[in-house]
Amino acid sequence: MKTSYKIAIVGSTGLVGRTVLKILEEKNFKNCSYTLFSSKKSAGSKLEFLGQSYVICELTENSFNSKFDYAIFCAGGEVSKKYIPIAVKNGCTVIDNSSVFRMDPKVPLVVPEVNPEKIFENSGIIANPNCSTIQAVIPLKPLDIKYNIKRIVYSTYQAVSGAGRQGILDLESGIKGEPPKKFPYPIFNNCIPHIDVFLEDGYTKEEHKMIDETRKILDKPNLPITATTVRVPVRNCHSESINIEFEKEFDIYDVFKLLEKSPGIIVVDNPSKNYYPLATKADGGDEILVGRIRRDFSIKSGLNIWCVGDNLRKGAASNAVQILEKLL
Amino acid sequence: MKTSYKIAIVGSTGLVGRTVLKILEEKNFKNCSYTLFSSKKSAGSKLEFLGQSYVICELTENSFNSKFDYAIFCAGGEVSKKYIPIAVKNGCTVIDNSSVFRMDPKVPLVVPEVNPEKIFENSGIIANPNCSTIQAVIPLKPLDIKYNIKRIVYSTYQAVSGAGRQGILDLESGIKGEPPKKFPYPIFNNCIPHIDVFLEDGYTKEEHKMIDETRKILDKPNLPITATTVRVPVRNCHSESINIEFEKEFDIYDVFKLLEKSPGIIVVDNPSKNYYPLATKADGGDEILVGRIRRDFSIKSGLNIWCVGDNLRKGAASNAVQILEKLL
Repeated sequence: MKTSYKIAIVGSTGLVGRTVLKILEEKNFKNCSYTLFSSKKSAGSKLEFLGQSYVICELTENSFNSKFDYAIFCAGGEVSKKYIPIAVKNGCTVIDNSSVFRMDPKVPLVVPEVNPEKIFENSGIIANPNCSTIQAVIPLKPLDIKYNIKRIVYSTYQAVSGAGRQGILDLESGIKGEPPKKFPYPIFNNCIPHIDVFLEDGYTKEEHKMIDETRKILDKPNLPITATTVRVPVRNCHSESINIEFEKEFDIYDVFKLLEKSPGIIVVDNPSKNYYPLATKADGGDEILVGRIRRDFSIKSGLNIWCVGDNLRKGAASNAVQILEKLL
Repeated sequence: MKTSYKIAIVGSTGLVGRTVLKILEEKNFKNCSYTLFSSKKSAGSKLEFLGQSYVICELTENSFNSKFDYAIFCAGGEVSKKYIPIAVKNGCTVIDNSSVFRMDPKVPLVVPEVNPEKIFENSGIIANPNCSTIQAVIPLKPLDIKYNIKRIVYSTYQAVSGAGRQGILDLESGIKGEPPKKFPYPIFNNCIPHIDVFLEDGYTKEEHKMIDETRKILDKPNLPITATTVRVPVRNCHSESINIEFEKEFDIYDVFKLLEKSPGIIVVDNPSKNYYPLATKADGGDEILVGRIRRDFSIKSGLNIWCVGDNLRKGAASNAVQILEKLL
């Protein structure tokens, strides 16, 4: 690794940004020089990172005048839309956590376990997929290669941390009976079938993200997929009930073996011992836990799985850092 | 109504039993004489009911010697298995909340909005379906009549009250960091894809109940159905993501209109106003809230809906009392 890469972390004080810093520390990413950006609000504050004290810099239109090699953006769509083109024009390669560029045909949408080869087809921007998509495509990819996926039905159980720090605060304050600030309804004691905004067709943008991004990452632009995405009162880690129909017939033991040897997955599936994926077990890890693997008897070549992933880590920060690692 | 019916409530101190009493009070079911039974543990304690003080009687093998006209059993499978045959032999007609007799071909499995005509085909026992099945078949029945259901994919989000009082206590104590007593893992901050016991094929008994009972109630013994049933950290009211494929084509506006005029349903579906079914809104009601009604574009004649019901009331107690009302 070249030792002098200059790296910008944009949105470094947010929930995902802090997780990016944590993962860089875990991976001991020392041989780079970092600049940590935030909005005006948090700028000037200090952060301990890799044994040093960093003063957070305000992100401005001139921030990328001093050339950066790489940037990880985790500050939301508006910031990405405005500042990423400036960064790219100044020669910086950007890994973007927002949804702004994900469906741009010139922008690779990458999960390193699934389509790492796309990383180098970038024109300055590599998009990090939606958290709920990342944890789904990791088990779906090897299954698709072997059995050719014909249709997917997603139902998600998404944690409040996916809505940022205020999402977590809404759950915590909801327990005490206080009204929500982030969510339209109390999330405590509720399942809210509404993530991101509603679109004309009655689906939410989150549901469309799962459909469109899965198609792009699996490189099957017309794959029939439907989705119902739901916020549940869980602090961290998304769970997903995934129903899959394949073109080819499968042996259920081969499915277990295939998933067990596939990258980024831990198979947790032993009903007799009550082993199955749980949010509390996936929390803090980078692997996707896959279990409840069983034939769907209602259709030819149907399969049900239950997968759980840490949406802040593998669903966002770890995936971005893995892309950075591949780039370096 | 004859004024002298003798009615036994078995399991009257449990979560469902108390809800049965509450609903009898709401409906002002005064013109009957009641005997409230429980296990030895709660026997002798007192309960206020319909303005009177009742001493809870211990259920024994002789309890049905004094003839009862009707009994509602809400004390679990073991009690139903042992005492219902005795009650029936003594001329009592029983409405049973347990799963013991549900799939017996001689026992009608009844949701009054769906198949009320079956009530009178009983040989002494009428089974109350599983909570998660009741709230599903109420919207499914009118859709099936009009469009002929071809396949169903269920993913459920089930409240802890479905596991009885200790389920609620597990959620409450889990918030304080205490270990669970009812569930195999903490339910706070978790989604547990495990309700009832696991069977040989990798499915849980709860999933089989949903599949088998839906088929029986819709009177389609071979209908292809699959299910993933999940416990979520919600106090009361189950939510369900239901994906349906029909034989016949539909117009989405006709689906709305059909559901709106169907019994037992409140359509809550206006995304532009953030109207959709929520556990906190269904709590305490007897109607099933149905929303997120939208075409599933991944398949010909596919539909997604999200339905929420109070599992203690319509999912158990209210349904049983409605059956009793039809009998009287």
